Amino acid sequence: MAAFRFQLEHQDDKTRARAGTFRTDHGEVSTPIFMPVGTAGTVKAVSQQQLKDDTGAQIILGNTYHLYLRPGLDVLQAAGGLHRFNHWDRPILTDSGGYQVFSLAASRKITEDGVVFQSHIDGSRHLFTPENVMDTQRRIGADIIMAFDECPAWPSDYKYVKTSMELTHRWLDRCLKRFHETGPLYGHDQYLFPIVQGGTHADLRKASCETIASKGADGHAIGGLSVGEPTEMIYEYCGLCCEHLPVDKPRYLMGVGTPWDLLECIALGIDMFDCVMPTRNGRNAMLFTTQGVINIDNKKWEYDFSPLDEGLPNAFSQYYTKAYVRHLMKSKEILGLTIASIQNLSFYIWLVGEARTHIIAGDFASWKASTLEIIKRRI
Amino acid sequence: MAAFRFQLEHQDDKTRARAGTFRTDHGEVSTPIFMPVGTAGTVKAVSQQQLKDDTGAQIILGNTYHLYLRPGLDVLQAAGGLHRFNHWDRPILTDSGGYQVFSLAASRKITEDGVVFQSHIDGSRHLFTPENVMDTQRRIGADIIMAFDECPAWPSDYKYVKTSMELTHRWLDRCLKRFHETGPLYGHDQYLFPIVQGGTHADLRKASCETIASKGADGHAIGGLSVGEPTEMIYEYCGLCCEHLPVDKPRYLMGVGTPWDLLECIALGIDMFDCVMPTRNGRNAMLFTTQGVINIDNKKWEYDFSPLDEGLPNAFSQYYTKAYVRHLMKSKEILGLTIASIQNLSFYIWLVGEARTHIIAGDFASWKASTLEIIKRRI
Repeated sequence: MAAFRFQLEHQDDKTRARAGTFRTDHGEVSTPIFMPVGTAGTVKAVSQQQLKDDTGAQIILGNTYHLYLRPGLDVLQAAGGLHRFNHWDRPILTDSGGYQVFSLAASRKITEDGVVFQSHIDGSRHLFTPENVMDTQRRIGADIIMAFDECPAWPSDYKYVKTSMELTHRWLDRCLKRFHETGPLYGHDQYLFPIVQGGTHADLRKASCETIASKGADGHAIGGLSVGEPTEMIYEYCGLCCEHLPVDKPRYLMGVGTPWDLLECIALGIDMFDCVMPTRNGRNAMLFTTQGVINIDNKKWEYDFSPLDEGLPNAFSQYYTKAYVRHLMKSKEILGLTIASIQNLSFYIWLVGEARTHIIAGDFASWKASTLEIIKRRI
Repeated sequence: MAAFRFQLEHQDDKTRARAGTFRTDHGEVSTPIFMPVGTAGTVKAVSQQQLKDDTGAQIILGNTYHLYLRPGLDVLQAAGGLHRFNHWDRPILTDSGGYQVFSLAASRKITEDGVVFQSHIDGSRHLFTPENVMDTQRRIGADIIMAFDECPAWPSDYKYVKTSMELTHRWLDRCLKRFHETGPLYGHDQYLFPIVQGGTHADLRKASCETIASKGADGHAIGGLSVGEPTEMIYEYCGLCCEHLPVDKPRYLMGVGTPWDLLECIALGIDMFDCVMPTRNGRNAMLFTTQGVINIDNKKWEYDFSPLDEGLPNAFSQYYTKAYVRHLMKSKEILGLTIASIQNLSFYIWLVGEARTHIIAGDFASWKASTLEIIKRRI
């Protein structure tokens, strides 16, 4: 089984951007990277072959909360883990389920032990604890798994955030203990990332980074951002966390964000991202392209037979036209959702790949400035 | 531009099944063939690449009624025709819109001139005549286009069906006149198939076949079957039509049917089929497989990690498991609809391909008998 071995290949002179590589038993990942979200064991509307061939995804994310509820752990374990269940042979990362328990479950009650919640599907009651969330992620079998944390709403007062962060830290110790007492179930290694919390309070963020960093994990996640606060605060606290997290481990900013958020946060030192935005916004006709942002429902595209995005290397974006995709969206055809999802995922993955290229080439800052101008505009 | 040139390669000894080939400027088609239905310029939930690589589709169908309303003829003509609009470079057949005017439109009024109807989308009023339906299909640009007909409901009394059939025949003459007065718009040739009507009245069917056959068209369609009558009547009147249609032209049975309908009607002398059943039933969790019919929603598949269909050559059916597809369908994931559609289309196209192989090998009748036993069972 592979050592995780994050290799930092290049650090930018003018920003804190980095290019690196990490290794899992399901293959290498070049950073910075964007991970498409495969909520229930599928990236919505996209086949695994399309993910590989058309979007170029190197690693995808699965949601522990969703997978635990459906299909359930017995099915996943009988299948031989999520990779075999969904026929995806590249790396997978699972979150801990904490965020969905707070955002989706019908009701929840937090105690020192863990969280009791009701399923949003059938109202059934369940308990997540740091220990059983480790066991659950062992059974799902992702390459990278996340510690169980509480993600406070924004805004929350200092006292609540501090108490919550301390609980997350105590839960982390319980996660680490269980993680080290158990082993992977499917013959490939798993790596645990702890999660920094601390809300939008600088001293708490700093303290959380130091606590998390002291555990010697293979990588570090930043949680509790992009939960409603202004964009400038995302960048401020993301930057602060990057300053206080080790240089030699990958940094994963959870649930962020727009394409320009990615570039800004890469410049602050982030290596890994995930977000439902490319797929969710795509299904709502918002397309991110190398030329700017498109509302493909708009009548202006009715006669536009130019490729969806000439700037992307994937065949989908080359051979489908704006007029055709608009027609599909207006007609509520499923293929429209698929094409829009592939376009947006391809764009995100192309964008972080370009960032990487320019970090290595040494002109990331100027490339970022000129690229932001283009990709943020509405066309 | 190619001559249509239907070549009859083999006729079965024990049945009236035939194997043949016809040629269009977008490529050859081997018969018997099943044509996936691409209603609004897309086969629902399936990309053009998946259609080619995974289902093996040789030719697809487009619906004139749908395409006329949305995206509309101006868009299609500006795109350079449907092939360029939807990025499908193999043959396309369009129906005449007649069937949808009668089954979908909000209201309709038939006169000698044509049919005035209201759009099911926005209630707007439109007129289809034999002449403008030819012009419409010139502008859509399918390789094979259909004459405008009235399709009477079942049951309809003798007098109504006779009057309707005579109208269809008069419309056919107007279609042929307009067809020959005009030419293709996009540099590839188009071929017009007339449609036999006559309901479930033997003398009318026979008369309609003789009238239609006298026009010397490149192929002949049988309409007005599978509109509610018992299955045995479909076979009875399909067989009767085949007996009275020329041997040297392809025979296309419109809108039929189940996989076993296809085998029965191939045995009666049909060469071409289309039906929404594989895609529509697939989206409702009914899978046709080489082992029998599956309701993939059923709990019995929850732990079944065998391939969706080991008997099919396509990769989709090999690497996705029954348990995974069941999970996707239960979770209402779009990928489930795509996989189910591809499975069913692959199965239909595999089935007619096998029929062809056995017609040529000379053992079609015995192969059909043993195959029907397997594919009809519920598993």
